[in-house]
Amino acid sequence: MNNTRARTDDVDLTRLFAPRSVALIGATDHPTRFGGRLFRTLIDFGYTGRILPVNPRSDRLHGLTCYPSIAALPETPDHVGIVLATERVFEALEDCAARGIPFATVYSAGFAETGTDEGRERQARLIAFARRTGMRIMGPNCNGVINFLDRFAMTSTGSIRGSRAPHGNIGVVSHSGGLGQITVMWRAMQTGLGISYEASVGNEADLDSLDFARFMLRSDATDVILLAIEGVKDGSKLIDLAREAAEREKPIVVLKFGRTAAGTRAAASHTGTIAGSDDIYDAAFRQFGLIRVSETNELYEMATLLRTRRWPKGIRAASAAATGGNIVQLADAGESVGIEWPAYADATQARLGELMPGYGKVSNPTDMTSLATGEPENFRRALQAIADDPSIDVLAPIFAFNMRVDIERGAEFVRDCVKPAAMLWIGGCNDDDQFTARDLIAQGIPVFRNATPCVRAFRAAADFGALVASHKSGARTPLRPAGADPDRARAQLKATSGKLTEREAKQILAAYGFSVTHELLARSADEAVRHARSIGGKVAIKVDSPDIAHKTDAGALRLGVEGDVQLRGAFDEVVAAARRFAPSAIINGALVQEMATPGVEMMLGIVFDPVFGPVIAAGFGGIHVEVLRDLAYRIAPVTPEEASRMLRELRAFKLLEGVRGANPRDIEALVSAIVRLSWFAHDFADEVVELDINPLVVSERSGGVKVVDALLVRR
Amino acid sequence: MNNTRARTDDVDLTRLFAPRSVALIGATDHPTRFGGRLFRTLIDFGYTGRILPVNPRSDRLHGLTCYPSIAALPETPDHVGIVLATERVFEALEDCAARGIPFATVYSAGFAETGTDEGRERQARLIAFARRTGMRIMGPNCNGVINFLDRFAMTSTGSIRGSRAPHGNIGVVSHSGGLGQITVMWRAMQTGLGISYEASVGNEADLDSLDFARFMLRSDATDVILLAIEGVKDGSKLIDLAREAAEREKPIVVLKFGRTAAGTRAAASHTGTIAGSDDIYDAAFRQFGLIRVSETNELYEMATLLRTRRWPKGIRAASAAATGGNIVQLADAGESVGIEWPAYADATQARLGELMPGYGKVSNPTDMTSLATGEPENFRRALQAIADDPSIDVLAPIFAFNMRVDIERGAEFVRDCVKPAAMLWIGGCNDDDQFTARDLIAQGIPVFRNATPCVRAFRAAADFGALVASHKSGARTPLRPAGADPDRARAQLKATSGKLTEREAKQILAAYGFSVTHELLARSADEAVRHARSIGGKVAIKVDSPDIAHKTDAGALRLGVEGDVQLRGAFDEVVAAARRFAPSAIINGALVQEMATPGVEMMLGIVFDPVFGPVIAAGFGGIHVEVLRDLAYRIAPVTPEEASRMLRELRAFKLLEGVRGANPRDIEALVSAIVRLSWFAHDFADEVVELDINPLVVSERSGGVKVVDALLVRR
Repeated sequence: MNNTRARTDDVDLTRLFAPRSVALIGATDHPTRFGGRLFRTLIDFGYTGRILPVNPRSDRLHGLTCYPSIAALPETPDHVGIVLATERVFEALEDCAARGIPFATVYSAGFAETGTDEGRERQARLIAFARRTGMRIMGPNCNGVINFLDRFAMTSTGSIRGSRAPHGNIGVVSHSGGLGQITVMWRAMQTGLGISYEASVGNEADLDSLDFARFMLRSDATDVILLAIEGVKDGSKLIDLAREAAEREKPIVVLKFGRTAAGTRAAASHTGTIAGSDDIYDAAFRQFGLIRVSETNELYEMATLLRTRRWPKGIRAASAAATGGNIVQLADAGESVGIEWPAYADATQARLGELMPGYGKVSNPTDMTSLATGEPENFRRALQAIADDPSIDVLAPIFAFNMRVDIERGAEFVRDCVKPAAMLWIGGCNDDDQFTARDLIAQGIPVFRNATPCVRAFRAAADFGALVASHKSGARTPLRPAGADPDRARAQLKATSGKLTEREAKQILAAYGFSVTHELLARSADEAVRHARSIGGKVAIKVDSPDIAHKTDAGALRLGVEGDVQLRGAFDEVVAAARRFAPSAIINGALVQEMATPGVEMMLGIVFDPVFGPVIAAGFGGIHVEVLRDLAYRIAPVTPEEASRMLRELRAFKLLEGVRGANPRDIEALVSAIVRLSWFAHDFADEVVELDINPLVVSERSGGVKVVDALLVRR
Repeated sequence: MNNTRARTDDVDLTRLFAPRSVALIGATDHPTRFGGRLFRTLIDFGYTGRILPVNPRSDRLHGLTCYPSIAALPETPDHVGIVLATERVFEALEDCAARGIPFATVYSAGFAETGTDEGRERQARLIAFARRTGMRIMGPNCNGVINFLDRFAMTSTGSIRGSRAPHGNIGVVSHSGGLGQITVMWRAMQTGLGISYEASVGNEADLDSLDFARFMLRSDATDVILLAIEGVKDGSKLIDLAREAAEREKPIVVLKFGRTAAGTRAAASHTGTIAGSDDIYDAAFRQFGLIRVSETNELYEMATLLRTRRWPKGIRAASAAATGGNIVQLADAGESVGIEWPAYADATQARLGELMPGYGKVSNPTDMTSLATGEPENFRRALQAIADDPSIDVLAPIFAFNMRVDIERGAEFVRDCVKPAAMLWIGGCNDDDQFTARDLIAQGIPVFRNATPCVRAFRAAADFGALVASHKSGARTPLRPAGADPDRARAQLKATSGKLTEREAKQILAAYGFSVTHELLARSADEAVRHARSIGGKVAIKVDSPDIAHKTDAGALRLGVEGDVQLRGAFDEVVAAARRFAPSAIINGALVQEMATPGVEMMLGIVFDPVFGPVIAAGFGGIHVEVLRDLAYRIAPVTPEEASRMLRELRAFKLLEGVRGANPRDIEALVSAIVRLSWFAHDFADEVVELDINPLVVSERSGGVKVVDALLVRR
């Protein structure tokens, strides 16, 4: 449940995707039944291995010998498909196990997706069967795999009927068959993209979406993976996959459903997925470099560029077109996703000036007016000048209505350009109606029809390039900070029993290098007076009780107390207030605490996510978290770079830079505190279920941060 | 410059769009020159009126008699196109005016879009010419109009070459030719939509985008208008157009560029448009019911549904499909734009239960599993049951891969459904590859390929329906609130000279019914003591000076002062501080002011926008406006409903509902204050350039609101 766990269970799915022979239990020649459609597809898609239909009621099916049982097969297949009534699935699986078959795909429904106890029990039984026998099972309630390289497809989908599409370098993994095979795969192919492998994984009783994605990641035939999921069961497995994707320089684009309550409900009734918090998924995707999109078309639009695996050095883009309105649209769309349109260098200006006489200074993106339409050669020269500009990272020339030869030359420019580039072709072809973007995309050229997907893909490619670079430099590996002493913290935690007081929680944090307020426990009013003298200045008086988590609610807190009379009064009052609030509470006395220097108040916390385990949260105090929900999350542990990115996600980040005349705050110390907290979350994942530091006071630059209050809940 | 101005300048463009005869100055038979392309299109598009080419160097062009000059024409055309070198345009225009020609389109560039003084002067001359002669001019730097009904097209675009598309009911207006005619119009037609009129308006020296949009709005042939603009010159004209659109129940979808700095720069260099604040455009679109989208494809996707002019009664949607993954995607996409998926009524559940035996309670959106694929008749019955459910306003059945007959029956269901409905067809056709969504869209059926545009269109249709209903009920007309006394306020403003003090500004606000703090001007410390006694309790002491706008910055403000000694000290201190801060300032003395009851502090303001005139702004005090930019705008004046909607746009709106144990605030009084302020902004548009009420303290329910400080800047 945490992201430094060793990788386990690296199942190799080669023989599932490319079996030397395959059996299908429940094969039939009925054209519309599920078993019939599956069997027909298996034959028609061009599989070259041996197909072994199993059905006791037939001798031959579509010209192939049909066998009455698995036991009767003349050879042991690598993979068996099971299309049977739910109650007969287990019997078939036992037969398969007895023959030593390594992979089975269970298409039958009636498991966890029904939402019934019976269905859930069946699914648990399936999991237990897989564990016991070592057989690996895809499904149940799934629609199998498609292997475009080896022409193996054991699936019912109508989306691969007809002429066989050439394979490409895009892998697709989806929970849903209809969504993965039609809305993603078929639609991607309609735009001219080619697929390597597709998997519609269903309920994931044993093999899950990430196992299939990992197989694709490791295959030479796949350069980008599209993942359409309702959630994952194991966050650490997703993180491992993301790390491997960065190492292999193969981006994963993810569409994760359940962003809304309605989506979560719909997902639960679809494959029985139990989703963690979508905010935490979102944070994890950002932290580990998965590219998140929000609809199926965005998955393959991203792939149109990412499959070229050319990572821009930055986010500085340029474009040129004959149509000014489209330039304006592209400029807007780009800046909306953080793309910059820098001014051209002087040398570029000079070269463009020769091509566009009388136009003065040329802006970026560049409206070449009808000069571009009338003089295609000039347009290409202008693009070349822009590509040579050292201040430009990526290029997106716009084409509207042009002659085929000019569009093809534009495509060659995009393909051969020294910088990553994509063509934004918004119109048609003047001399060939049948010539479309699909033709160019099928040749591997990144062509977009709309500005937004184009700039989003540029942004994703640049971000992924930065991730790859930081992986290579080792900057992505979290390192335990000096001064974090788990042994001391563990000993302190052991020394406490039951619920922890503020003081105890802060002592544990101090063992991780946190600066905490100076404070002493007073058991009497006299002692409070003595402690206040030793601390000096005004103090806070807070009840010390493991049973009162929220001292303000109990009225058991006094701030800015000074002088013996006030001190005695405050001690008596907070103890009395605590007694009234919780008559049975254990009350140790009152904490006499230095008054922290005023500063920006933040809240840091640890939460435990069912999917990702220990997660850290950061936000500003007061209404920011409670009303505005301005919170950033990360999976623990984090690097300082990640902690810094996390803070910059907060809408109110400027408060740390100093606003309304205030000086900048000690962001460095805050980053260090987040890193320490993330290691604590990581180290104590089994002992601690919740921790809130609220407030953490952030002083002005070099002034550090201080824990003023903390609440720690033991598991 | 304000939205209650009378409508003026209602030019009728019928003879521009459908001239009985048309002349083209600069016609040529050269195939690639602009004048040649224009002339060719005029002939090929099927215009049935008389075409009169004008070119002194030809006698005949494409078989038509060519005339040496406008003077030589055998008849006076309704509309003349001018394709000449820039310097020769005016001579041609004078000739046209001499013949009494009512409409001219100037295609030539070289005007304001060049960004040069010379170009701007030329454009000013063009405007003056139009004013002087009464001739109405389209352009310059434009690409003319297309009239699909009467087959009149005087434009250079390649996007209408080839076979003639049937006309439809969608009007398109764009600044840019390439964007309007290709990225919007041609692309819309590629999806199966039909166009009535298109106008590419260029620099708008005389006729502007709104004149063309109004023509389309008033034509029976147009049911929805797509507007792609970089800005408008006159906000009140846009508002009038929006009101007329609501009255005629014809929605306007608007893509407004310049959302970002890069987009604004690109727009400025394209047609020389000077944009107002995009935030204020955005507020105006929402206030007056224009449907804003962010990219060209969204324009025609919206039109796919809106052209049916069926307004849902609400935002409660339902869907059903054979593919669960797509159901999940649709549920997520819907809730993201505020669409609800209510549970079905019991009667519906019962009907669906019969169709889906063994599935228990059916959820919405509904995964019918393979029951839908295998039994198309059952699927239609299920859709009918859902359509009959009184808790459902709109339907979006999903189709994946189906037989043509089943898709066609689905389309019939969508067309004939008692509730507004759209088909979400994500896949293809099993038995006819050539049958696509385009075929259905061309028949007028709303068909979507992706979930997001579908739910966005539903949301826009429901919102537009609500707007239409509130227009009919009269609720959209702002009414002057009782107690707002412009005469008294004007008299008070007149009584002041130069800059206004806080006290003077508040007295003017009091004349509009605002409750302001009780305060008295003290000219001496003794007077301050007397005033404080008469006010009672603790008071604030603030310097009273027209020259010191920000008293806190000057240190000329003391809060919570009481007792004679403190009062005298405070008076002396604030006066001394003010003298130090601004030695030459006029200092009237100090204001002795009651301390306002603590409450939620808000900021209300008036700003003057170059496009929309007086605009009101509202936000919470403190960091909300300055750091978080959490501000809402509206064009003045507003209705209470609009003021309420404005507050609900604020991210921190919950602060008014009561958070962290606080009681709800007097939102009603706040709404009333916003309405009053909006009338003040409207009434004093010519006298006041800026007004800030900061803070306005909002007390608990029934406690009202109070102006604590105000700054008014005279024009």
